[in-house]
Amino acid sequence: MTSQFENFFHVISREAAEKTIQIHLAPLGKETVSLSNALDRISAESLTAPESLPPFARSTVDGFAVKSQDTFGASEGFPVTLEVAGVISIGTLPEASLKRGKAMAIPTGGALPEGADAVVMVEHTESPDPAFVEIYRPVSPFENVVRAGEDIEKGRPVLERGRKIRPQELGLLAALGITRVSVTRKPVVGIISSGNEVVSPERVPGPGQIRDINRFTLQGLIARSGGEARFIGLTPDDEATLKDACERGLASCDLLLLSGGSSVGTRDLTLKVLEEFGGFELLAHGIAVSPGKPTIIARIGGKMIFGLPGHPVSTWVIALLFVTRAIQTLLGGRENYALAWDTAVVDGNIPSAQGREDFIRAKVTGVGRAATAFPIFSKSGVISSLAAANALIRIPLNSEGVYKGEEVAILRLP
Amino acid sequence: MTSQFENFFHVISREAAEKTIQIHLAPLGKETVSLSNALDRISAESLTAPESLPPFARSTVDGFAVKSQDTFGASEGFPVTLEVAGVISIGTLPEASLKRGKAMAIPTGGALPEGADAVVMVEHTESPDPAFVEIYRPVSPFENVVRAGEDIEKGRPVLERGRKIRPQELGLLAALGITRVSVTRKPVVGIISSGNEVVSPERVPGPGQIRDINRFTLQGLIARSGGEARFIGLTPDDEATLKDACERGLASCDLLLLSGGSSVGTRDLTLKVLEEFGGFELLAHGIAVSPGKPTIIARIGGKMIFGLPGHPVSTWVIALLFVTRAIQTLLGGRENYALAWDTAVVDGNIPSAQGREDFIRAKVTGVGRAATAFPIFSKSGVISSLAAANALIRIPLNSEGVYKGEEVAILRLP
Repeated sequence: MTSQFENFFHVISREAAEKTIQIHLAPLGKETVSLSNALDRISAESLTAPESLPPFARSTVDGFAVKSQDTFGASEGFPVTLEVAGVISIGTLPEASLKRGKAMAIPTGGALPEGADAVVMVEHTESPDPAFVEIYRPVSPFENVVRAGEDIEKGRPVLERGRKIRPQELGLLAALGITRVSVTRKPVVGIISSGNEVVSPERVPGPGQIRDINRFTLQGLIARSGGEARFIGLTPDDEATLKDACERGLASCDLLLLSGGSSVGTRDLTLKVLEEFGGFELLAHGIAVSPGKPTIIARIGGKMIFGLPGHPVSTWVIALLFVTRAIQTLLGGRENYALAWDTAVVDGNIPSAQGREDFIRAKVTGVGRAATAFPIFSKSGVISSLAAANALIRIPLNSEGVYKGEEVAILRLP
Repeated sequence: MTSQFENFFHVISREAAEKTIQIHLAPLGKETVSLSNALDRISAESLTAPESLPPFARSTVDGFAVKSQDTFGASEGFPVTLEVAGVISIGTLPEASLKRGKAMAIPTGGALPEGADAVVMVEHTESPDPAFVEIYRPVSPFENVVRAGEDIEKGRPVLERGRKIRPQELGLLAALGITRVSVTRKPVVGIISSGNEVVSPERVPGPGQIRDINRFTLQGLIARSGGEARFIGLTPDDEATLKDACERGLASCDLLLLSGGSSVGTRDLTLKVLEEFGGFELLAHGIAVSPGKPTIIARIGGKMIFGLPGHPVSTWVIALLFVTRAIQTLLGGRENYALAWDTAVVDGNIPSAQGREDFIRAKVTGVGRAATAFPIFSKSGVISSLAAANALIRIPLNSEGVYKGEEVAILRLP
């Protein structure tokens, strides 16, 4: 299949690329996991509380369960004396109900007896005679008490579909007895490295050769954004070999990344090979982002393929911005949890060309209003600059650059 | 072994507790992992580059390798014409060296021939006759070239001990042929849940009982901060059973968390049981942090034990602030990678008592200067408020509170 797109550079903006990705991908199927395996997975269903929490009124302090009205007017000078009608032990429901003028000793977490509506802290009482308690401060209704259903009412939403399950949500689900959760299956993301000059990192590069870097940066970004990386192979710039690798990748993965050689010839080869597949659709041939402009986004049989630029830094920037977005869309995530946007004051002038969005590696110190971004200027092939960076400064599409002291949007690289 | 500390509340500040943890723990041993398993692990050794990168001068563009001085004075009106002396293919080292007045076609990533010091982009050339190239713009020495060793010089530090290995570092190590990395062993963190009222989440709680929440929030926090959670068991408030669980936990774990019942009686029991172990040291009995003050930090036989407050929210706050610190110290991490400090403007007045540091659950919208924190006021036993929060607002030790519109430090809960 040949295409009218060949050699036609269909460059789109970052926002358009993000929309394209979201439009052309749908969330994967669900699977059920135990709570112990649910951390950082994306919820595939919206859940409501199957019961109220707590199921009974509980004390939040150690003290005495009372009828609050019995304590009104109590003070240091004129304590109220109540008869101690019993001791509530934790983990049981008090059998007797509380009568007027009486109190029951209650531990933190203990269930309030019927008739009681508040708890006086032990610190505000004295019991010279264990049969009686002197109360030195009044309590208002429900003071020091969590009412039944106060934490969560039965039927209330507790987890939205598309939310990342954090440690807090694990606790909330456990509290409600929800021990198995429906989450989106992890997208399997295939990586094909290509390039005649590229060798596997365990090999000593021959003259003119370099080691495969992108495979590893991509693996890391995929894992961090909730995908499962699968290395398909390292191929030379050869049509038949590359096509075979693509076939295997498309058959076994939900998303396919081609981290191509960096030359124009390699990029042309990538496009040529992809066009040979039935149902090939070119979604983007170039994104107005620097570094990383020569990026291909395509779709074959419902699966998305990224033709990434060869430069390690360009590949990395594009993968951070767009591959994580594709993974999130496959996960059905409400937001791109892999991107940590922030702002900082830039410490240096950064020129920029209009018509492209620049992402400049930077070292950021401080947080909040004290965050300062020091740009790292170096050539895009330089991997050490990426390791030195803890943020990317964003220069907008229609800006000619920023001046020292201006506030800029940054992406933190934690 | 009895102790003079019994019933003596040895309350220390957050900073003192952090220091205590750091002083009393040392990094665990090392293990070697492959690059594919190194993501987010903590480097156990400082590494230097075993070779220079790139090993040869490379072109960063598609174009023509030249002697830069041959292009000086070239312009659109007066192009310089050079003879094309060859085509460099990628992945090989050019055999011939470049003579004056000549050029060689070179792809991005191609190795520069001896004698060349710059590359003219193909866009700035024309070749009506393939044997010659017309150059329309001059290049300066090293323009469009990454020199040998420019990215990384042999012997330069590339990874500091104690640094978290991010996707970027994976790439840097791969580039240098470092395919196995020495990292600190993951701390095994034991969890013992206790309390007569606490039941396992898969069980339907009887009257007055509640499900174990802390086990799951702790598991999540431990995993997020690089530890390996191990559930030792759920015990009633019974001295012999709790002691047995502690013995098993101390024998099999690097760090032990007791998420006790919430009553004073349970806390006393925890301390009593721990004191029975030989070599027991009480490091903190209370931390000036709210919620979470009734926290015990102890050490037995070189292993640290946390007696956490029973309330789910208190337990969670204390685990976030201090257990993650202990895990980082065991990992030898340079910083506590689990804590994401930031700032925000608070939307509401928050009163606070002096002499304690308050951590108020909040919902934060926006980032950078636009970050606004809306406090969530609710009782500390309420787990739903924790799930609703995406940050904790910090009110300093000696503050009486903050007013709406003030800037506050926050901990983001991503």
